[in-house]
Amino acid sequence: MKREWDLLHTPGPTPIPPSVERSMSQPMIGHRGEKCKELMNDIAPRLKPVFGTSGEVLVVTGSGTSALEASVVNVTKPGDDVIVVVAGAFGDRFAQICETYELNVTRLEVPWGTAVEVEQVEAALADHPETKAVFLTHCETSTGVMHPVEKVASRVKEVSSALVIVDGVSSMGGAGVDMDQAGIDILVSGSQKAMMLPPGLAFVAVGNQVWSVIDANPRPRFYLDLRVYRKQLQSGQTPFTPGLSLLFGLQQVLTLLEEESLERVFERHQTMKEMTREACRALRLPLLVSDQDASSTVTSIRPDTFEAEKLRKVAKEEFGLILAGGQKHMKGEIFRIGHMGYCRPANVLQYISILEIVLKRLGHEFEAGSGVAAAQEAYLKCTKEE
Amino acid sequence: MKREWDLLHTPGPTPIPPSVERSMSQPMIGHRGEKCKELMNDIAPRLKPVFGTSGEVLVVTGSGTSALEASVVNVTKPGDDVIVVVAGAFGDRFAQICETYELNVTRLEVPWGTAVEVEQVEAALADHPETKAVFLTHCETSTGVMHPVEKVASRVKEVSSALVIVDGVSSMGGAGVDMDQAGIDILVSGSQKAMMLPPGLAFVAVGNQVWSVIDANPRPRFYLDLRVYRKQLQSGQTPFTPGLSLLFGLQQVLTLLEEESLERVFERHQTMKEMTREACRALRLPLLVSDQDASSTVTSIRPDTFEAEKLRKVAKEEFGLILAGGQKHMKGEIFRIGHMGYCRPANVLQYISILEIVLKRLGHEFEAGSGVAAAQEAYLKCTKEE
Repeated sequence: MKREWDLLHTPGPTPIPPSVERSMSQPMIGHRGEKCKELMNDIAPRLKPVFGTSGEVLVVTGSGTSALEASVVNVTKPGDDVIVVVAGAFGDRFAQICETYELNVTRLEVPWGTAVEVEQVEAALADHPETKAVFLTHCETSTGVMHPVEKVASRVKEVSSALVIVDGVSSMGGAGVDMDQAGIDILVSGSQKAMMLPPGLAFVAVGNQVWSVIDANPRPRFYLDLRVYRKQLQSGQTPFTPGLSLLFGLQQVLTLLEEESLERVFERHQTMKEMTREACRALRLPLLVSDQDASSTVTSIRPDTFEAEKLRKVAKEEFGLILAGGQKHMKGEIFRIGHMGYCRPANVLQYISILEIVLKRLGHEFEAGSGVAAAQEAYLKCTKEE
Repeated sequence: MKREWDLLHTPGPTPIPPSVERSMSQPMIGHRGEKCKELMNDIAPRLKPVFGTSGEVLVVTGSGTSALEASVVNVTKPGDDVIVVVAGAFGDRFAQICETYELNVTRLEVPWGTAVEVEQVEAALADHPETKAVFLTHCETSTGVMHPVEKVASRVKEVSSALVIVDGVSSMGGAGVDMDQAGIDILVSGSQKAMMLPPGLAFVAVGNQVWSVIDANPRPRFYLDLRVYRKQLQSGQTPFTPGLSLLFGLQQVLTLLEEESLERVFERHQTMKEMTREACRALRLPLLVSDQDASSTVTSIRPDTFEAEKLRKVAKEEFGLILAGGQKHMKGEIFRIGHMGYCRPANVLQYISILEIVLKRLGHEFEAGSGVAAAQEAYLKCTKEE
């Protein structure tokens, strides 16, 4: 099937809104000229509310992983004690980066599909009182769990002086985090998920209180040295030639988020989550994650009457509906539906109704139309005027 | 003046061909799906001739500087002796990266505006027999010098076992380097210059003989660990979510280069260089660089009857012609014209004829039309059938 007809519902990359696509197609500009300064000076303050911070949100040209690495190498030196919450593939990646950079890593392992509890982090900190930083994932993309990063951060700050560093790659722009209020020190993200852009930009939001640590940190770094990003941003520039077309697109993304309002954007994602989960229940599709721990941007299903990969194959071949499979040990065990960014309740109704046909083909038993009906009901409930 | 009317002639970013612009606007795809594998498997072999190598050309999502850094951190460890040819801002950047990563750096300083001589490198190697690697720039963007990297590499290989690592950011796609024949070990580039794409992709061409060094190198690295890029490429993938829209565009760039043929592309750049230089001579504009050392992608002029910045200002405000200024200590001293990528002799005729008007406004004395005539003559001479 041709790409034109695809319905992309992976948890990133996600579809691009037409106005953002058009914004990206503007002619190139010199990255040291006035037009680029105007662009950066426009974007920089508008990114702050998305990350819930009054600190700088630095834009790095790179994949989301470059931002994860930036958050590690700018505040740690070899031998530092750190705690990394590992509850999926991206917690594992954070731990791998920390291990690569010769930190003394305590992996706080949490079963895939469940969220870390504040008390677990507190206990780990009690065991490791010298901990320099706690790393955790907001939305663990590989499972669809949204960890209580604000609660964890608040508790960490109450009981220790450790930094709190959060991977918000698959949540920023889709779910709100009050970074400053919660005491999160660094919050990173990428462009290709709820931020509605192609991959290629990474964001590093840095709390004002962290710069003394970053400035004093002796670890060598160059491309990911946040000090030079901050310095250049003061004159509306980036230290290295930035991904200009993505910056053009980002400007329009911010306009879309502001026009809808962040509050309503986050509510829309909550609504899509509820619709998807209620539909799955009606269709007898076992949800991997509990209501309390579930992400508003991605939903994981662990089928018990057919193979997950078979469903993905039929959905893709017959309808161009692209879903994600499981990662690492969950490969073949689950499938994942992304509902973030340029995605709205109407898209949920569409993929649920497609899924019903696919489930019929796979011989899965359910009452026809019950998934769509449940999604509709969830929609009406979520959007009821108070 | 509106961006729509700009004539962008900086030495990067450069204008985007319409067909490349359209290719980039394709809908997003999953980066772990079949479509992305097809894309990567199509691109990977087609990049090799551009870099003159049978080795892998790895694609990193990042600015050109990320590729420079990758070439440093993958083959060196702290304390290694290295020689860096510094003849401009980008040689200096290479040296800065090497210094940041705690190498024992010998800066082989060459006056800005001249090319390094093979004998200078040989002498530096004789003084530093333990040299692990020699770093140099192909086209030094800040001056418009094209260093004889092939000759240098051949000599280095004759007299030592040092690696030769070349920054080809502002030359690849515009000038040919026979990387394998010359013995260049790593050749890096970026997307936003002669490769006719927006910024955001970096290329690292790695000679087959270098992998034993890379594999054995103990230095910590994660996002820029070339081993994982190579491993993932074997199954048509990238280790981290790649800049997909730029990859879509790259596929079309390769088609454009192949349709014209690399040989003719490089000839076209030579022609544009000759046209620009002959026009400058006719217009009494002093060229910074000698004929022998001059780059085919960018030309620097050091005016002596008016201020360089004044010319840039008038050209920009009246005609939307965007030229680059000088960098570092050459700021205000020179202006630079980029003639690379999506640029052809007709564009040269255009900017020369615009420059003539601007020069009149500045009170510079020359014979009206003489610049255009000289460029025309150079064009006819360069394109004469043998």
